[in-house]
Amino acid sequence: MSNTDLHRLFEPRNIAVIGASSTLGKWGAIIFFNILNGGFPGAIYPVNPGRKTVMGLDCYASVADIPEPVDLAMITTPAPTVLPLIDACGVKGIPFVIVVTSNFSETGPEGTRLEREVVARARSYGMRIVGPNTMGIFSSRRDLHALMPPVMPLRGPVSMFSQSGNLGTQMLAWGSSVGVGFEKFISSGNEGDLTCVDYLRYYGDDPATKVILAYLEGVDPHSDFLSVAREVSRKKPLVALKGGRTRVGGRAAASHSGAMAGSTDIYRGAFRQSGVIQVSTTQGLIDCAKAFSHCPLPRGNRVAIVTRGGGWGVITADACEENGLEVPPLPEDLVRKIDKVLPPYWSRSNPVDMVAALGPEPIEACLKIIAQWDGVDAIIAAGAAGGMAMQVPERSRLPEDYKKNLSQLFNPRQTHFRKLDETLELIKDLVKQKGKPIINLAFRRPDSDGEAPHDPAIVTFPTPERAVRVLRRMAEYQAYLTGA
Amino acid sequence: MSNTDLHRLFEPRNIAVIGASSTLGKWGAIIFFNILNGGFPGAIYPVNPGRKTVMGLDCYASVADIPEPVDLAMITTPAPTVLPLIDACGVKGIPFVIVVTSNFSETGPEGTRLEREVVARARSYGMRIVGPNTMGIFSSRRDLHALMPPVMPLRGPVSMFSQSGNLGTQMLAWGSSVGVGFEKFISSGNEGDLTCVDYLRYYGDDPATKVILAYLEGVDPHSDFLSVAREVSRKKPLVALKGGRTRVGGRAAASHSGAMAGSTDIYRGAFRQSGVIQVSTTQGLIDCAKAFSHCPLPRGNRVAIVTRGGGWGVITADACEENGLEVPPLPEDLVRKIDKVLPPYWSRSNPVDMVAALGPEPIEACLKIIAQWDGVDAIIAAGAAGGMAMQVPERSRLPEDYKKNLSQLFNPRQTHFRKLDETLELIKDLVKQKGKPIINLAFRRPDSDGEAPHDPAIVTFPTPERAVRVLRRMAEYQAYLTGA
Repeated sequence: MSNTDLHRLFEPRNIAVIGASSTLGKWGAIIFFNILNGGFPGAIYPVNPGRKTVMGLDCYASVADIPEPVDLAMITTPAPTVLPLIDACGVKGIPFVIVVTSNFSETGPEGTRLEREVVARARSYGMRIVGPNTMGIFSSRRDLHALMPPVMPLRGPVSMFSQSGNLGTQMLAWGSSVGVGFEKFISSGNEGDLTCVDYLRYYGDDPATKVILAYLEGVDPHSDFLSVAREVSRKKPLVALKGGRTRVGGRAAASHSGAMAGSTDIYRGAFRQSGVIQVSTTQGLIDCAKAFSHCPLPRGNRVAIVTRGGGWGVITADACEENGLEVPPLPEDLVRKIDKVLPPYWSRSNPVDMVAALGPEPIEACLKIIAQWDGVDAIIAAGAAGGMAMQVPERSRLPEDYKKNLSQLFNPRQTHFRKLDETLELIKDLVKQKGKPIINLAFRRPDSDGEAPHDPAIVTFPTPERAVRVLRRMAEYQAYLTGA
Repeated sequence: MSNTDLHRLFEPRNIAVIGASSTLGKWGAIIFFNILNGGFPGAIYPVNPGRKTVMGLDCYASVADIPEPVDLAMITTPAPTVLPLIDACGVKGIPFVIVVTSNFSETGPEGTRLEREVVARARSYGMRIVGPNTMGIFSSRRDLHALMPPVMPLRGPVSMFSQSGNLGTQMLAWGSSVGVGFEKFISSGNEGDLTCVDYLRYYGDDPATKVILAYLEGVDPHSDFLSVAREVSRKKPLVALKGGRTRVGGRAAASHSGAMAGSTDIYRGAFRQSGVIQVSTTQGLIDCAKAFSHCPLPRGNRVAIVTRGGGWGVITADACEENGLEVPPLPEDLVRKIDKVLPPYWSRSNPVDMVAALGPEPIEACLKIIAQWDGVDAIIAAGAAGGMAMQVPERSRLPEDYKKNLSQLFNPRQTHFRKLDETLELIKDLVKQKGKPIINLAFRRPDSDGEAPHDPAIVTFPTPERAVRVLRRMAEYQAYLTGA
């Protein structure tokens, strides 16, 4: 019997860590440390014959000694120790084992032989294996941080599986700094037993997962990956970064995850036909995660651009056209409406260049008018939530009373930017009312990287090009869903 | 007589601001405020017939009343007032006037007529005009912050001219958050008189300027731009972002800066032949500014990749191949040397995957070995200066003594990452010794955006793709210089 329902893997009642110790610097210790620090609410059993306690918890010599049934075990000890430990876990009736240990199929024929033996042994007990050579698992619902790096992801609707543990866990960390929240994560390792197809199927059925991210190096051409992807992508967006797209990258992937990289063109076509949203950079992966988590899909590819500065309008328009998005001309009735709220020298066209209009009122008025426009499917608002924090250098010659009141005078959340939060609320309301994405561009400031999550529901990027690339992916996905 | 030596424009002894007031919310007031706050060491003369003092300084009714010769005047008052003010400045013998005022050629034929009249009048006094419709000037040497936005750039070797004031000044602000320092900046506005050709020539001759950035929407096809670019690019890198590359972007550019956008293909070819380093995004502009400021040029296009995590090696290799950079195989003697410093399961190839080796020693040892390799022209070190700060969530179940010592246990500058600063120093030394660029990848962490300038001399990017694109531009520029 094989367990294909991964519920007890992703939401275990309890967990045993084989090779747990208190010696930080060892991975078994660090993972154990991360689980404790993450606050997993179930029982945590360190297993190590050489210790009585680990970080304050009673330690067991073997999984056999644990006084209750165990849902999930992790093995962190060297490769030659793994096979007997699998036996111990099998006898104990543990349904899932994560083999963190490396030095299996990724290192050559000898490792491959051992890996096959480990998997066959596990199967004989009806047990399923994650890995080997994995960095572990994260599960928001169970506060489970069974990972090698000490990362504390934001909580949110994104679930990810990754054929690189390092890259995957870095995405979790990166998410925290840009407002992308995660629900579940698994580092799939060598995929000796459970594969990305299993994780994809599980995420597809998981109601808490709204967006799926994948980092892939190789997919078994005989697997169900494409057919499962086709089913899942009907239900929720599946965004994939494929590593090993090139000859050299493929060579590196082979030595990293043992993956057969396969031809780029074949992947690209097959992925497209299965509704997979393909990105070619880590930046694209995290940007799509952000936008797909929080924005409705555009119904088409027509974009309105509103900007405080003409240059930004120009390069945003360039990026739109280069990415197959339309920037339709502004209809005469909208021109007349906007005439009433902007100074006479505004651009009178799309992009709507507000020509350095200060304060929140002009952009709010423009956004309200443009949100009514049926001729566009999405809005990019450049500088809606901008502003710049003010510094007082040593050499400042300002009068003292100005220096004292500087934060009042120029702080982006004060004076002429004092209604920033209201503008952001307006954007949120308009998105909700109209069901159209509004992407906000907040340029970088000395005090911020421009994408700090004021409120993750307001999708913000620091450059127009990234906003446009994401809108393109969204429009393409919408076209796939509707068969357009 | 026309003054083509822009020294008194970029390094004026004193400055008059016509339309200065104390009413923040008016541009004349904000610019005056920014000049005072920036600490310009020369005399600052507010000119406004309606005021006795402005922000604590004596105010003059007219430039005629200023008691000494004036190098630079700024006009911030509405368009209809500009012509008589030009007369006043001309009579006073002021060599340079920055006309911030908009509503000239960018708004149509009427504005164009007025702009021509303003320029002709200025010329009749031998006076040169910046703008109109400009956001002003920055000059590090004179602490001159005569700009509309309250931006305080980092000081450094980059000078920029921009046909969008908003985009240009945002680059100054962005530079502060990623370690790109500026020497001079000018918002060229409508270029009624002085044009980007004049600024380019001046920056080309300016010994303090090591790297030139340009945001361009249109270049007069009859101008000397290409021939000047050809001369300047022999001496220092000229990195350009061209707005209005597409039909829609070109339409927006016409209404923004009145620029004739011209055909993309013609620009691209002509720029390439003139040694202009072309980027297509603002991100590319700032990334090139960073790398060209601090890195020696690679002598060719061969790259070694060192990584703590296999996935990063794979996608870095992909990005290299997709950008025309070679990732040559590792020679046998280097494999043997690295065998001595890494665990047996390292990749034994380029990318050098250190397989999650902890601590600074392995990467330092690898970098020292690879820096000796004559077969590569540049090194990308993924995760050399990485690490993750540790958080303690509310729900943490760590023992109290661990919680207390957490910053000791996992702080990136402590324990196993305690020698981070030494690793960065090593990178700096190796770059100096070998004259080869080493680009550092520091992935994003919850507490940082991954590109905070530890030390701007160590060029750091948060994604491999950005590092690779920059290396490509550097290799192409080197090939241009050597005729390869």
